[in-house]
Amino acid sequence: MMSPRPLTDFSRLCVHTATTKPWNIETAMDRYAKAGIAGITVWRDTLEGRDPNTVGRQLADSGLEVVSLCRGGFFPALSEAKRREAIDDNRRAIEEASAIGAPMIVLVCGAAIGQSLEDSRSQIVDGIAAILPEAEAAGIKLAIEPLHPMYADDRSAINTMAQAHEACDRLDHPLVGIAVDVYHVWWDDTLPRQIQNTGELDRLFAFHICDWMTPTRHLLTDRGLMGEGCIDLPGIRAMVEATGFTGFNEVEIFSTRWWESDQDEFLEKVKETYLRHT
Amino acid sequence: MMSPRPLTDFSRLCVHTATTKPWNIETAMDRYAKAGIAGITVWRDTLEGRDPNTVGRQLADSGLEVVSLCRGGFFPALSEAKRREAIDDNRRAIEEASAIGAPMIVLVCGAAIGQSLEDSRSQIVDGIAAILPEAEAAGIKLAIEPLHPMYADDRSAINTMAQAHEACDRLDHPLVGIAVDVYHVWWDDTLPRQIQNTGELDRLFAFHICDWMTPTRHLLTDRGLMGEGCIDLPGIRAMVEATGFTGFNEVEIFSTRWWESDQDEFLEKVKETYLRHT
Repeated sequence: MMSPRPLTDFSRLCVHTATTKPWNIETAMDRYAKAGIAGITVWRDTLEGRDPNTVGRQLADSGLEVVSLCRGGFFPALSEAKRREAIDDNRRAIEEASAIGAPMIVLVCGAAIGQSLEDSRSQIVDGIAAILPEAEAAGIKLAIEPLHPMYADDRSAINTMAQAHEACDRLDHPLVGIAVDVYHVWWDDTLPRQIQNTGELDRLFAFHICDWMTPTRHLLTDRGLMGEGCIDLPGIRAMVEATGFTGFNEVEIFSTRWWESDQDEFLEKVKETYLRHT
Repeated sequence: MMSPRPLTDFSRLCVHTATTKPWNIETAMDRYAKAGIAGITVWRDTLEGRDPNTVGRQLADSGLEVVSLCRGGFFPALSEAKRREAIDDNRRAIEEASAIGAPMIVLVCGAAIGQSLEDSRSQIVDGIAAILPEAEAAGIKLAIEPLHPMYADDRSAINTMAQAHEACDRLDHPLVGIAVDVYHVWWDDTLPRQIQNTGELDRLFAFHICDWMTPTRHLLTDRGLMGEGCIDLPGIRAMVEATGFTGFNEVEIFSTRWWESDQDEFLEKVKETYLRHT
């Protein structure tokens, strides 16, 4: 396993609002900024009932760097009408990203039960192609996030780095790249060369961290804090940094266990384990 | 998707005792035989407190074909002492398989938290190599079952067909092959060629069926009955049969939901969905 340079400050730490789900967007930006965290990735549910332009001004005032908007995607569907709806929704996501000052949207690409994963992947490529004009006009990057194979039923038909690369190859556009989330790809024995490829192809757009719990009690909401699980975080960070990546290390933890805890204390643990175990 | 010949009888249906977990081995063999099911795969926990030779005689009398003993494996460990214990346990499994008349053992290969998956895979290969003399003496086949990547933490470091092939390549022995369980591999876009390879290399030792539920509420015990989920069972069966495989279609469903139901009625549903959805 490779050892990267230890992390000694929070200048590259970004926290996803979903990590501190009990907080609304105003509280999250306030607390992250006070905690000395440098970046924020905003989940779309936090914008509900708000004018994204207002949130964008608040974010600009907070001093936080807006790393990305999470999430677009969910392109596949059995009917063309539903696929058009998904494309429209992704266009709205591009508008929201512009409004809040996010340079990138993370795509959880989707999968439709009732058709092959191959067909879903084609619809994903078609969906991304359909929104590329708007992404270009707004200058917003689109990061395809390969999801763990346990989400292949209805969350994403792109389940490996190889498939993410293939989608990028088909789209062949500088605004289309890959978000590497350790949770989804840590088990893959091709990971070293796949990450290396993202560097050579200028496709490594985002790096998400958390940990894999043993046992995992829920498929969606039992992620661990860094160091709580079995993922070789320093090893994967070393691979990522070897590509020349200098972006944020984004903490994205969905955990009912942590959401039920005091969120200020949890945020301190995020900082502590970020330095110690990443 | 390919369409195989419809299944019209139960001559190639095998049921795993873990599928009807509430039944002990005596009840399972009685009910399977009365239901006209041709094969049984015996889980080792059903032998606890029994003389396997006695169970072997009962199985011979039942008219059921004993397809395999489930399961050996769990070779990796951080200490050499633990790895030796695992090897000893697998030698006992070979004795049990002989005693009950099972020609094969299915291996859930194991993974040790605290070392890399690569190291765990090496220990798996070493472990299998260590028990090969006993397997040869007893004429027992060893089927490596690649497990879904969601089990890479502590159940198996062999998570893809490609990795199972690699382990077989390293061992290069006619008694070592692969058990294909749809639950673990359905999402893999290389599956068609990987299954084809098992045929060309005479490595396709077993075929396990069930279905993937949406949502999946538990990582271990929420499998579906055939047709309840999203797996293209006829498509995968077609790939398997295209290799020349004429072995059993083994129903292996871990489901607290079904275990809580009447097991006789459940067994009828197994038969019905076997014909209709496999």
